[in-house]
Amino acid sequence: MADEAPLQLLHSELIQYISKSADAEDTENGRNISKLESLGCRVGQGLIEKLTKDSPRFKDELDIMKFICKDFWICVFKKQIDNLRTNHQGVYVLQDNNFRFLSNLSAGKQFLDHAPKYLAFSCGLVRGALSNLGVRSIVTAEVSVMPSCKFQVLVQKV
Amino acid sequence: MADEAPLQLLHSELIQYISKSADAEDTENGRNISKLESLGCRVGQGLIEKLTKDSPRFKDELDIMKFICKDFWICVFKKQIDNLRTNHQGVYVLQDNNFRFLSNLSAGKQFLDHAPKYLAFSCGLVRGALSNLGVRSIVTAEVSVMPSCKFQVLVQKV
Repeated sequence: MADEAPLQLLHSELIQYISKSADAEDTENGRNISKLESLGCRVGQGLIEKLTKDSPRFKDELDIMKFICKDFWICVFKKQIDNLRTNHQGVYVLQDNNFRFLSNLSAGKQFLDHAPKYLAFSCGLVRGALSNLGVRSIVTAEVSVMPSCKFQVLVQKV
Repeated sequence: MADEAPLQLLHSELIQYISKSADAEDTENGRNISKLESLGCRVGQGLIEKLTKDSPRFKDELDIMKFICKDFWICVFKKQIDNLRTNHQGVYVLQDNNFRFLSNLSAGKQFLDHAPKYLAFSCGLVRGALSNLGVRSIVTAEVSVMPSCKFQVLVQKV
């Protein structure tokens, strides 16, 4: 638990900080969310470079996704993605049944509205990591029951 | 290395983000630094609560400082403070010979000017942790040779 606490706490404070320093308009049109997403993206880019420094070349897209689900996720969240599904046409669904950044929120339905700001940074993380491995993507996330969470990766063919 | 990378990267991006979103006046009068410090303070408060949850009561101030130098530092930076000195009158100097948040900066003298913004968050961390253990303090930091760094804690007697 203590191992991931610093990152988790900094992440929460960052959300507070960005929400507080923004004006009402920013909140309304989702500019806060996009700030968090782009911060995450840059962290993801840096991190994947460190992690893959000595890795052999990846075989294919699926191989890259597996790396994200395992090594990358363990590095950030100290656990693996619980389930990876794909339609083999560029859509991947990564399911985390106990997503760390949601684990401090009450598990009921009452905070579901707040979920997006707790997920934006991590969507960015995945997008940034993938982009530095040559995969352009759109990453979204959804929560139906806290603290489990699904990330959907939509690969952009060039 | 990889273990502390997410926190380290997020910390750098946070500094970038706060510097970028501020206007020239904020930068000049050090408001950026104080934002980072207060963010750190809240993270320190949360973290020390998690870490001391099952600890026995501390004997005295020195005992608390030793905890900060060891358990707390290891949790955040994956290493201990290298040297702790005190005048036994409320002044403590914590020396870290390879401070993680400076380790990505070139070790020459050319970036010494940038050091304060890389230290503010951590000064806050220490102040926040101490405050939740009932020790009011002023925490400052100085760097003479990168990446080593000295934190000075000045305990405020009530």
